[in-house]
Amino acid sequence: MRFGVNYTPSVGWFHSWLDFSASDTARDLEAIASLGADHVRIFPLWPVVQPNRTLIRPSALQDVATVVDLAGSFGLDVNVDALQGHLSSFDFVPSWLDSWHRRNMFTDPDVVASTAAYVRALAAAVADKPNLLGITIGNEVNQFAHAPHPAPHDITAEQGHVWAAAMVAAARDGLSAGSAASAASSASVGLEARLDPAPSVASGTGSRPGPLVTVAQYDAAWYDDAQPFGPEHAADHGDATVTHSWVFNGSAALHGALGAGSVRHGEYLLQLAAAWNRDPARPNWLQEVGAPTNVVDPVDAAAFTEQTIRHVLSAQQVLGVTWWCSHDVARSLADFPELEYDLGLFTNDGRLKPAGQAFSAVARAESVRDPSPSAAPPATALVLDDVLPDGAVRHGTRADCAPGGRFAAAWLALAEAEPDGRGPQVVLRSRLSDTALLAARGIEHCVDVPSDLDTTTVRVAHPATTP
Amino acid sequence: MRFGVNYTPSVGWFHSWLDFSASDTARDLEAIASLGADHVRIFPLWPVVQPNRTLIRPSALQDVATVVDLAGSFGLDVNVDALQGHLSSFDFVPSWLDSWHRRNMFTDPDVVASTAAYVRALAAAVADKPNLLGITIGNEVNQFAHAPHPAPHDITAEQGHVWAAAMVAAARDGLSAGSAASAASSASVGLEARLDPAPSVASGTGSRPGPLVTVAQYDAAWYDDAQPFGPEHAADHGDATVTHSWVFNGSAALHGALGAGSVRHGEYLLQLAAAWNRDPARPNWLQEVGAPTNVVDPVDAAAFTEQTIRHVLSAQQVLGVTWWCSHDVARSLADFPELEYDLGLFTNDGRLKPAGQAFSAVARAESVRDPSPSAAPPATALVLDDVLPDGAVRHGTRADCAPGGRFAAAWLALAEAEPDGRGPQVVLRSRLSDTALLAARGIEHCVDVPSDLDTTTVRVAHPATTP
Repeated sequence: MRFGVNYTPSVGWFHSWLDFSASDTARDLEAIASLGADHVRIFPLWPVVQPNRTLIRPSALQDVATVVDLAGSFGLDVNVDALQGHLSSFDFVPSWLDSWHRRNMFTDPDVVASTAAYVRALAAAVADKPNLLGITIGNEVNQFAHAPHPAPHDITAEQGHVWAAAMVAAARDGLSAGSAASAASSASVGLEARLDPAPSVASGTGSRPGPLVTVAQYDAAWYDDAQPFGPEHAADHGDATVTHSWVFNGSAALHGALGAGSVRHGEYLLQLAAAWNRDPARPNWLQEVGAPTNVVDPVDAAAFTEQTIRHVLSAQQVLGVTWWCSHDVARSLADFPELEYDLGLFTNDGRLKPAGQAFSAVARAESVRDPSPSAAPPATALVLDDVLPDGAVRHGTRADCAPGGRFAAAWLALAEAEPDGRGPQVVLRSRLSDTALLAARGIEHCVDVPSDLDTTTVRVAHPATTP
Repeated sequence: MRFGVNYTPSVGWFHSWLDFSASDTARDLEAIASLGADHVRIFPLWPVVQPNRTLIRPSALQDVATVVDLAGSFGLDVNVDALQGHLSSFDFVPSWLDSWHRRNMFTDPDVVASTAAYVRALAAAVADKPNLLGITIGNEVNQFAHAPHPAPHDITAEQGHVWAAAMVAAARDGLSAGSAASAASSASVGLEARLDPAPSVASGTGSRPGPLVTVAQYDAAWYDDAQPFGPEHAADHGDATVTHSWVFNGSAALHGALGAGSVRHGEYLLQLAAAWNRDPARPNWLQEVGAPTNVVDPVDAAAFTEQTIRHVLSAQQVLGVTWWCSHDVARSLADFPELEYDLGLFTNDGRLKPAGQAFSAVARAESVRDPSPSAAPPATALVLDDVLPDGAVRHGTRADCAPGGRFAAAWLALAEAEPDGRGPQVVLRSRLSDTALLAARGIEHCVDVPSDLDTTTVRVAHPATTP
């Protein structure tokens, strides 16, 4: 079980890439390591690294590599996100993809080839780092693919698959090429290592699998039937299924900040993710979760944090949880949605906040758990109606899963009724007959959503439009 | 008469601000100085300097100041443009003004205040440089104010005046504050200098007026009646009236690359500018003119350059001409319109091109001319019908002025018929009764546009949409 923190630089937020300071970064990373975290997730800004479609700045790649090294010196592994893209309400789109040069981000051949070149170069730049946790294609890139984005690059689900596959391939290419280059430059490494396409790196805590490649999406992928990137994009690409849990999506409004529907929202997303995985052993990663002040009173933030993580720990096949975020945004920076200023586990000037204390206590206690727990997974699974009785794909499945939707309400009721406090697994109706899959997942009982369920539908908020 | 060059860095184009290299810059500036140029115009990228609305990066301002110093070491004065904004088809808009944070660039109070803060800070950063020629609010910012921009920030002409006045005031504030700060830090300067609101700086070539503040517009200001920024915005704000001459606007298509309507286009714009000036002594600056390969064959570039500048020299009250541009764009950079790669007086690797030889020859021969030539201005003026017979403002005046329009055709016919080869001045019908103005301008004969003129209307091309 990995405990990590999304790293928001205390000086200059992500604009600090324009004035990269190794010492500022080291101070922040030292603070993060003091929490007992084992990894950070970092976010280069796309237009800073690739300002022209065919110019990928070596110095920007070097800065990213330096952050990975600095993190390693504090015992932290690092996940590097490529396409930002979108961060905390701000879009960072290169000039070659905007305005007069606007082309579809996901389908234009030149754009896709050059975007892949960036992902590949970034992966290659950090491929040989022993503390590289992985490469994420970009932060919630699916935000750009549909409304309510103010200028969406609309695509079909199939086009989303083609794009995601291309980006994952680019990241893997970069990891292989970077490792090979590093190996080739090291006299002590034999030919086999240089030719090994699947890099395997050793961290300070022993050998581990090669860096993960992942695709990150905001929760419209799970909750909005109109969003072209959906559960299959999360579950079918890369090495783990990534979820981002933000209770300003309606959960807290419906259930209260400390209501079960809020503090179990991360757990619920992990169970949804597991339902769509084709491989029962595929890990699920709660890559973002935080306590947004627009719906979680600061006095409840520590309790929210502790309870959220406790519930996450009760799910099976959890790779880890990565809290958003390390440091509050400086009030001297303008235009962030109010809640974005206060998501840090540390204040902007470095004081540990109650939520940080709570995170740290759980991380220190739980990080020593066996990554393959002997405890059996939840034996009950709630059936998600992804198909109609005739087997056709059913539209509306994702709305059912959204906060207040029929499926979400049923899952929550079942979770709260379980004597051991562990929420049920989720199984797709389309896979109910796959007895081998159910057995491998440890599913013993399948339960249908009650037909007489009372539900309240809420509109899922987009992260950039939250009050 | 000033001869200058718009400086396009040979390494990394304007993205070089992200990897500022004093030595690369010095090599380019040395080459520019070798032409006999006396100034350069430089272009910081707005989102690089002000990535957050309330974050103006000191190191970016320092880089700009360093370029000014480097230029000074080669005997070059420098004009600094603030809001880029737009350059060679690419828009650079900060994330705090785009997408989820989009607000009207010209009228939103927070945006205008913060934009002014940037202009002020940039001016202050270079105010004490003895070789500062001036501050331009930004490169052709009027492109953002109307169609055909793909996402225009539509405004009225009056809103354009309020905005331009605010930006000019901000630049002047910055120049005063920067000079005062510099004076205060110099023990040898007395109290009076510190309190002087109008900085007067001495250059290596003797005393000269304080830095100019100017507003630059693309030629829709002169030719498109729908463009909210018009001739009055050019003539009523700042210290000189700026024109940008690009014969891909229809001139070359109508007249041929070396036709009079092309090689006199810069001269014509300067005469149009002079017509709108309220002060007959106000200088006019041809701040951009180049030989675009989509309409000027490279074999004609030198002749086009030489003839264009010769005609400019025949106009009155010309502050100078600043050629676009110093260096070809590297072919390794993608997505520029084809013509943008070849506008340099030098190739990207620093070889002088025939147009550069032509520019250099004229600059060396003519830069020694008295800035207040004893030669009388052209005695004939063509009357521009800016008002209807009843005195009301006449819509369509700008279309008449556009290439192929009635007024443009009449001016060109008159210019070609003049025995001395100097194009006529232009006088507004609304000012015909101002005999003092006409006398001060040296206008002796006023001529109406012939009523039986044959004209061909052409659509004025936007610079970012040229083939």
